[in-house]
Amino acid sequence: MSRVAIVGASGAVGAELITLLEERRFPLESLRLFASRRSAGKSVRFGSTTLTIEELPQDGDLGADIVFSSAGTSLSREHAWDWASHGAVVIDNTSAWRMDERVPLVVPEVNGEAAAVHAGIVANPNCSTIIALMALAPLHRAFTLRRAVIATYQAVSGAGAAGIEELRRQARAVLDGEEPRREKFQHQIAFNVFSHDSAVGEDGYNAEERKLTEESRKILGAPELQVSATCVRVPVFRAHSEAIHAEFARPVALTEAEAVLRAAPGLELVDDRANNSFPTPLDVAGRDVTLVGRLREDSSLPGGVALFVAGDQIRKGAALNAVQIAEDLLRRGLVGEPQSVAAGVNV
Amino acid sequence: MSRVAIVGASGAVGAELITLLEERRFPLESLRLFASRRSAGKSVRFGSTTLTIEELPQDGDLGADIVFSSAGTSLSREHAWDWASHGAVVIDNTSAWRMDERVPLVVPEVNGEAAAVHAGIVANPNCSTIIALMALAPLHRAFTLRRAVIATYQAVSGAGAAGIEELRRQARAVLDGEEPRREKFQHQIAFNVFSHDSAVGEDGYNAEERKLTEESRKILGAPELQVSATCVRVPVFRAHSEAIHAEFARPVALTEAEAVLRAAPGLELVDDRANNSFPTPLDVAGRDVTLVGRLREDSSLPGGVALFVAGDQIRKGAALNAVQIAEDLLRRGLVGEPQSVAAGVNV
Repeated sequence: MSRVAIVGASGAVGAELITLLEERRFPLESLRLFASRRSAGKSVRFGSTTLTIEELPQDGDLGADIVFSSAGTSLSREHAWDWASHGAVVIDNTSAWRMDERVPLVVPEVNGEAAAVHAGIVANPNCSTIIALMALAPLHRAFTLRRAVIATYQAVSGAGAAGIEELRRQARAVLDGEEPRREKFQHQIAFNVFSHDSAVGEDGYNAEERKLTEESRKILGAPELQVSATCVRVPVFRAHSEAIHAEFARPVALTEAEAVLRAAPGLELVDDRANNSFPTPLDVAGRDVTLVGRLREDSSLPGGVALFVAGDQIRKGAALNAVQIAEDLLRRGLVGEPQSVAAGVNV
Repeated sequence: MSRVAIVGASGAVGAELITLLEERRFPLESLRLFASRRSAGKSVRFGSTTLTIEELPQDGDLGADIVFSSAGTSLSREHAWDWASHGAVVIDNTSAWRMDERVPLVVPEVNGEAAAVHAGIVANPNCSTIIALMALAPLHRAFTLRRAVIATYQAVSGAGAAGIEELRRQARAVLDGEEPRREKFQHQIAFNVFSHDSAVGEDGYNAEERKLTEESRKILGAPELQVSATCVRVPVFRAHSEAIHAEFARPVALTEAEAVLRAAPGLELVDDRANNSFPTPLDVAGRDVTLVGRLREDSSLPGGVALFVAGDQIRKGAALNAVQIAEDLLRRGLVGEPQSVAAGVNV
């Protein structure tokens, strides 16, 4: 049993966290919901009870053993260690601490054991990284991944509830022959695609693309891994897809790759060539598994493997992965006493 | 002046051909419109006159020097040489004859000179191929392209007017909370993406992906070129986008690549990193140019180049390219006498 707090309870990921805790019968002693002043006071149904969203307390004591943080990077950057200092394990859905060496970056099916050594914060990776690694990590373990070229088809849910609402509103405007208003995104998303709406660095890569490279290296423990991604938003509500070309330390036969992917946890192979049935974001929306298919030998590089993955951005890409981390920590008895498991790092 | 016929005049590409002939003041002696029995008899405005769509004549004589064929591959396969035998140059928008050695496959900005030697048919390449090559061909000429990894974001217009209508109808159904009907496509396209709806071969690549490889090799005269594509439909009405990773015979500096692309005909560089402004399908819809941007050194391969292109599928991807071919042939005086320019091949 554990005392749980959700920071950012009124957002898309927060709502999914609440759903998942109920759906998975997470062992709760208590559940507190926090959000900004704007949402404080709102009621949320949880099973047969009603919870009220609270404002964050000034003293940083959320009265919780586990804190799910999904209220934005700046809030996590400012408060996460403070929340942890009151005895909580913070499972952080933001990018604030992912690359910090004190903080394990965890996909339970990939490197669940890494969560065992934390100093108060465990970071949830970027959604695109999680979904790519669900397929790439087992292939890496089997064949040693050297290079991955990735093109993403990312849902608007990655920009939160406001992204979802903007797609809906703009699509209706276009169908009604009206001028679609742009609020959340700089570019029109309805019936359009655009390069990911994160800041572009001097090398021309945007933040989302850099996360795919850096986080993959950290999670796989493969600092030499070469990744190049093109991250693109598409007018899809809540699941990401990715076209991936992977190169390994040795030529990999398709039958080998398929055997590895079939046996991998959390993955479902959808690869029916005769019926043109492959992973789609719509088919994986609301589901826990990551779909993989379009498995083929890279026609431009013998021994390379091309594939296509799709995963629910809000579930496996965020809330589900975070809840799985919490379940793992509970199972290992690592909740409630961060000091005893800290890696000797002063925070 | 020339006598022109459009076969498939009632389709999306046919309508665009009519628009372009008018817009570009194509030197017309006569214009005849042909389509299936279902559309025959319909009236079409052309400038100040009204044309009537006719059924195809049995004898194959379309009364034309130039025939634009965009009524489907099977029709072109059956009749194109017959139309040519009556003295016409057939500019074929279908895939029927693209890989035939008697038939030049032409993107005017890339290999316009190839059209000079034809035996009655000049083929218009696949839309994704044209749009990719608008950027890759000048880079190939400068640095010798060895390998391209391509992921596409393809509009529904590639499936014709029915594809456009299906996206519109399904999107409205979803917004209204109704079950979207699937007619043109096997999978829902509204608020979804799916692997391209062409037949998948034994190597796992679909026909669209194979076209990108085979047609690129033919157009560039580069039989050793390695291409691997993942072709994906996205809920966009009429322009294709493509994420491309290109590898050359030698390492290419970004400044070199940019200089080449800036100077290339028919291309417009949209690459404003500070303002996150890059090519989008919406920005290029209805335009003649192909947009290129997201130019960066491939972070996974020093000396490789990553880029993103977007082009209007109906214009440059089909109708415009065909009209440009016709304009080139007229300019070179190569219309009306196919025998005199035939490459000595019996057809």
